[in-house]
Amino acid sequence: MGGAEVERLIGLLAKLPGLGPRSARRAALRLLTEPETRLRPLAAALTAAAGAVRACGICGNLDSQDPCVLCTDPDRDAGAICVVEGVGELWALERAGVFRGRYHVLGGVLSALSGVGPEDLRVASLLARLAEGGVEEVIVALGATVDGAATAHWLVDRLRPTGVRVTRLGQGVPIGGALDVLDEGTLAAALRARRGA
Amino acid sequence: MGGAEVERLIGLLAKLPGLGPRSARRAALRLLTEPETRLRPLAAALTAAAGAVRACGICGNLDSQDPCVLCTDPDRDAGAICVVEGVGELWALERAGVFRGRYHVLGGVLSALSGVGPEDLRVASLLARLAEGGVEEVIVALGATVDGAATAHWLVDRLRPTGVRVTRLGQGVPIGGALDVLDEGTLAAALRARRGA
Repeated sequence: MGGAEVERLIGLLAKLPGLGPRSARRAALRLLTEPETRLRPLAAALTAAAGAVRACGICGNLDSQDPCVLCTDPDRDAGAICVVEGVGELWALERAGVFRGRYHVLGGVLSALSGVGPEDLRVASLLARLAEGGVEEVIVALGATVDGAATAHWLVDRLRPTGVRVTRLGQGVPIGGALDVLDEGTLAAALRARRGA
Repeated sequence: MGGAEVERLIGLLAKLPGLGPRSARRAALRLLTEPETRLRPLAAALTAAAGAVRACGICGNLDSQDPCVLCTDPDRDAGAICVVEGVGELWALERAGVFRGRYHVLGGVLSALSGVGPEDLRVASLLARLAEGGVEEVIVALGATVDGAATAHWLVDRLRPTGVRVTRLGQGVPIGGALDVLDEGTLAAALRARRGA
């Protein structure tokens, strides 16, 4: 319906995470019925982003400036580097607003299934940053999945020879988490990480 | 995060039906990490659609040609016009592939709450099409909502003087519908519309 342009638009929208074929059709229809207020602004925003946004040469964050706004912010602690799997995880930590140091995007986690090996990860550039000096702590903030934990273990081994202090995220009961729905692994980790009350 | 271009892109994506702020951020990230295969093609598709797609001057369908492909298809029955609320409903009927006549997009339903009055609906152009002759049946295919039913009732009154046969969609149990979850109105309508088995 609506010609080749509409079909192509629906097909591309349907590939976005969160949108299926049905919601993509609804989204396309909304865009097409309001071309001046919705469709053209979105096209312009995409074109602007395509032209402006690139990966930061230092940390791997996506930003319209390179080095990115986080790497050039003098108020951020250059002595702490938080290693994250991807830009999505970096953005999540920034939204939480709990870390005021710098980041390093690893670009994935080791995974035999997905064919991600050590050579696919941005480890050499991380080691180069540490070799420049001035970094006191590297926080390995990878997810607590099987691949994430294995990658963290492997990465800690790679970082040990640098002499820089290496830490990992704490594990335990998530805030708001009810005990009876948590898996055994989380309960065991929470018990191991118990603190004086 | 990511600069003004990224924030603007996320904001526009979040306004699409089916996407909220969180999924819009995920969609933007996916687009930005694959600029050549995802971001630029989507920008191009939006620009192409904005330039090519317009409302058909006869029926109101959105298409890259005017009159639209449905109004110009000689294999479709010009003697039957199906009146629908919007282009989404037209597309839904076309996907079902059950109607081979022409359409007329009303552009909404009467609604005191939304401030939609008779002057906002494409009724004059519908009457003009009927005045040209050759139309034997008008099927009022509006939704069975309160506003849809009221609009259908009002529209039937407006169409009666033309002398053209006016019909409405049948009501009853939807295909695959379990009786115990249907509301009383649907059950009553289905009972009234019962047929010999």
